[in-house]
Amino acid sequence: MQEVNLGLYFLSEVVGTGLLILLGTGVVANVALAKTKGNAGGFLMVNWGWGLAVFAGVIASAYSGAQLNPAVSIGLLVRGTIDFPMFGVAVLGQMVGAIIGAVLCYVSYKQHFDDEPDAASKLGVFSTGPAIRSYGWNLATEIIATFVLVFVIFGFADYGVADVGVPGGIGGLSAVPVALLVVGIGASLGGPTGYAINPARDLGPRIAHALLPIKGKGSSDWSYSWVPVVGPLIGGVLAGLLAPVLLSLGS
Amino acid sequence: MQEVNLGLYFLSEVVGTGLLILLGTGVVANVALAKTKGNAGGFLMVNWGWGLAVFAGVIASAYSGAQLNPAVSIGLLVRGTIDFPMFGVAVLGQMVGAIIGAVLCYVSYKQHFDDEPDAASKLGVFSTGPAIRSYGWNLATEIIATFVLVFVIFGFADYGVADVGVPGGIGGLSAVPVALLVVGIGASLGGPTGYAINPARDLGPRIAHALLPIKGKGSSDWSYSWVPVVGPLIGGVLAGLLAPVLLSLGS
Amino acid sequence: MQEVNLGLYFLSEVVGTGLLILLGTGVVANVALAKTKGNAGGFLMVNWGWGLAVFAGVIASAYSGAQLNPAVSIGLLVRGTIDFPMFGVAVLGQMVGAIIGAVLCYVSYKQHFDDEPDAASKLGVFSTGPAIRSYGWNLATEIIATFVLVFVIFGFADYGVADVGVPGGIGGLSAVPVALLVVGIGASLGGPTGYAINPARDLGPRIAHALLPIKGKGSSDWSYSWVPVVGPLIGGVLAGLLAPVLLSLGS
Amino acid sequence: MQEVNLGLYFLSEVVGTGLLILLGTGVVANVALAKTKGNAGGFLMVNWGWGLAVFAGVIASAYSGAQLNPAVSIGLLVRGTIDFPMFGVAVLGQMVGAIIGAVLCYVSYKQHFDDEPDAASKLGVFSTGPAIRSYGWNLATEIIATFVLVFVIFGFADYGVADVGVPGGIGGLSAVPVALLVVGIGASLGGPTGYAINPARDLGPRIAHALLPIKGKGSSDWSYSWVPVVGPLIGGVLAGLLAPVLLSLGS
Repeated sequence: MQEVNLGLYFLSEVVGTGLLILLGTGVVANVALAKTKGNAGGFLMVNWGWGLAVFAGVIASAYSGAQLNPAVSIGLLVRGTIDFPMFGVAVLGQMVGAIIGAVLCYVSYKQHFDDEPDAASKLGVFSTGPAIRSYGWNLATEIIATFVLVFVIFGFADYGVADVGVPGGIGGLSAVPVALLVVGIGASLGGPTGYAINPARDLGPRIAHALLPIKGKGSSDWSYSWVPVVGPLIGGVLAGLLAPVLLSLGS
Repeated sequence: MQEVNLGLYFLSEVVGTGLLILLGTGVVANVALAKTKGNAGGFLMVNWGWGLAVFAGVIASAYSGAQLNPAVSIGLLVRGTIDFPMFGVAVLGQMVGAIIGAVLCYVSYKQHFDDEPDAASKLGVFSTGPAIRSYGWNLATEIIATFVLVFVIFGFADYGVADVGVPGGIGGLSAVPVALLVVGIGASLGGPTGYAINPARDLGPRIAHALLPIKGKGSSDWSYSWVPVVGPLIGGVLAGLLAPVLLSLGS
Repeated sequence: MQEVNLGLYFLSEVVGTGLLILLGTGVVANVALAKTKGNAGGFLMVNWGWGLAVFAGVIASAYSGAQLNPAVSIGLLVRGTIDFPMFGVAVLGQMVGAIIGAVLCYVSYKQHFDDEPDAASKLGVFSTGPAIRSYGWNLATEIIATFVLVFVIFGFADYGVADVGVPGGIGGLSAVPVALLVVGIGASLGGPTGYAINPARDLGPRIAHALLPIKGKGSSDWSYSWVPVVGPLIGGVLAGLLAPVLLSLGS
Repeated sequence: MQEVNLGLYFLSEVVGTGLLILLGTGVVANVALAKTKGNAGGFLMVNWGWGLAVFAGVIASAYSGAQLNPAVSIGLLVRGTIDFPMFGVAVLGQMVGAIIGAVLCYVSYKQHFDDEPDAASKLGVFSTGPAIRSYGWNLATEIIATFVLVFVIFGFADYGVADVGVPGGIGGLSAVPVALLVVGIGASLGGPTGYAINPARDLGPRIAHALLPIKGKGSSDWSYSWVPVVGPLIGGVLAGLLAPVLLSLGS
């Protein structure tokens, strides 16, 4: 494990996650809010938007290896790639970045939030919600989808393509595979819960939703908020445990 | 031909094909089942979903060279890249992985299977069916589409980009071209039969459909089930025979 | 200029262009013909289908440098990359490959051609036609779009990324930029004429349309057929002439 | 800072920006004008069209490092990558190229401009306009979106992937990440203002709109024209100032 400057480590996760959430919540705003140019642009557009949001965030988060997601960080912790202080600092940075990103999305789409009559659409820009509410099944979907995310990311590392969580370990062209993976997971496993697959992605913007003076906003749906936190964390731990058993086979 | 550990070889195909089928059947579930967020997302979304499903599967299947498809494996057998024991173990792993992947898709979309009234839509998540039933023409379409898949994959090997079937021969960035190829074949040749182009992709989930306690499920349509097995195998053999004649020209 | 075996050179263009036209006409069949699974899939799906068709064709056409298009070949002739015999053999291979590809598309979609009532939709699978007929303006659009294609392909060569027309000069990952370029040109400049941008792509399938026993087929629209031949050739020549003046600046 | 030939530098920006604007305005024409083949193709198609327009432009603009955008150039000026004469020459080239590209788009879609009854759709091909007019909020959106663009481009440079603004610093495969970034920004932040994120992209075609004899054209909306000039310039300056503080962490 390399020595790292925890201040720069924190900053790297703030900046990368901020970009991820600004662009990710942005594409939902574009598809879901009233009078936007991308209104009703379709789910595939949302998938591309989130995938390329990860792409931009990865590029801007070199120092900390572009974790951008507590589920990824906990997987790295399980595998011993990062230690507890790095984990804690990374997750804190991710939460701060996610809140900042959500605020910037709100500013970018301010008038469309004002003009949108449906409170659920407004919350949907910030945080995920289930298509059919059932905490058990929703949790299962988030666990499976996040497992795929973190497990395949660990597969990238086996190839030396992209070492997430290693300073300078990912970026440039090697950010493309990660983006494509997120596009694919969204298209394939996003149907039931809207694929949080990242506790910071969901909780950070939900906090922003609660705090921001959004016109006509409704509930922040705190009763569901634990699902997209707990599910992805379980998925990340499972990936961290199973990757050494099921992957690393090419080495 | 390298010495391989057949246990790891089997495991590698199980894991890769499991991811492929989880994500591949997942995108169909998202587009076809009731109340999902990607409902009616369009055929291009299905194409991207399956293409990126292959992408994820390839990354997680380094040891066996990410065959993930008996039609690819039989082509490799014809070309002499793998031997009979490797072929048998790979296909067995692909079938096991495909069934596991389909079960995980069912779990991920459990409530949407319950809420979907149309039995044909449910079977369509698992296995392909023809738009216009005619075994002869359906077979022809599957032969042609699978030939393109396996033939172009052998073309990648000629460039040293991606050696499918060779341990560690494909992965990382080189998985991108294979994913794009699958997106393209789906968009271009998926219209008549839904592009099985992979016997394990179709038969494994069909077995899962028959075994799973899916609410209101109908027939598993066994009368059609041989077409997406036989057609792709013929296509793979033809590609194995013709690739040395029509490709390898750059070497 | 390297010595080449003109027989292999011919075969390379046949195989590559055959794949290009099978997949390219295939995506139009999928979007346009009755009862297909991709029916009404949208113009972006057509753009991706054609772009990835080029991708597959390039991979399978290493020996001749994957020209696949008389407009590209004439540009290479103007620049002196290939000589007259190579040009003639390449164009002949492209025409033969295009006819074979169109026939294979017909076989793949046989029942959907039978079920499609609209003769214009059938011809549209094979060859391009103008949205608003006006030979002069249609010609201008094809000249401009093909100029962009060939000019940017020559730009790739300047970077050493992809040397179209040079044996082994393009393939693997370097086929991705060419595919993306074709997706982009289709989306941006395909609106008025359906972007033939390749005389063999249009004339070969038109000949196939005239010869094949397609049920209820109408005219092959020979009166328009010269536009997608002459326009692309002019565009290719202009690119060959202007590329040395406007590009090569990084060297 | 390398010695550059300012004539070639100018030409490189003219050619690259010309291609960018031809293809970028082209995709809007295809989606927005009457009777085109891509009519109503959706916002994601517009996003891909503009992203791949940047891709083509980058390939053809090696000598000047493919700036193609005064907001990028001003960021490079702030960071000291280019000097004032280079900045001035680049921006002049961008404006000239943008006007030429818009004229070529007009020629390509001439009959569809003639047949389109809505004057606003015609202007929309050339220049951006806000979904909800409010100079302050529109400006904020353009600042944020352009900041993301220039900031992440500077992130690419940190990885040695793509050195925009450095002769030969970007091209070939390294143009792909820039294209993807533009697709993502469009999908995510294009909803309120149509993402000019480039003063030359908006002002150049607006001048062309004013000068061209377009049938039934309406106002060129000069009252809004300063927003997509001033906003992107502010975003570019902010990126130039903040990139050294928030990025460069991997080095």
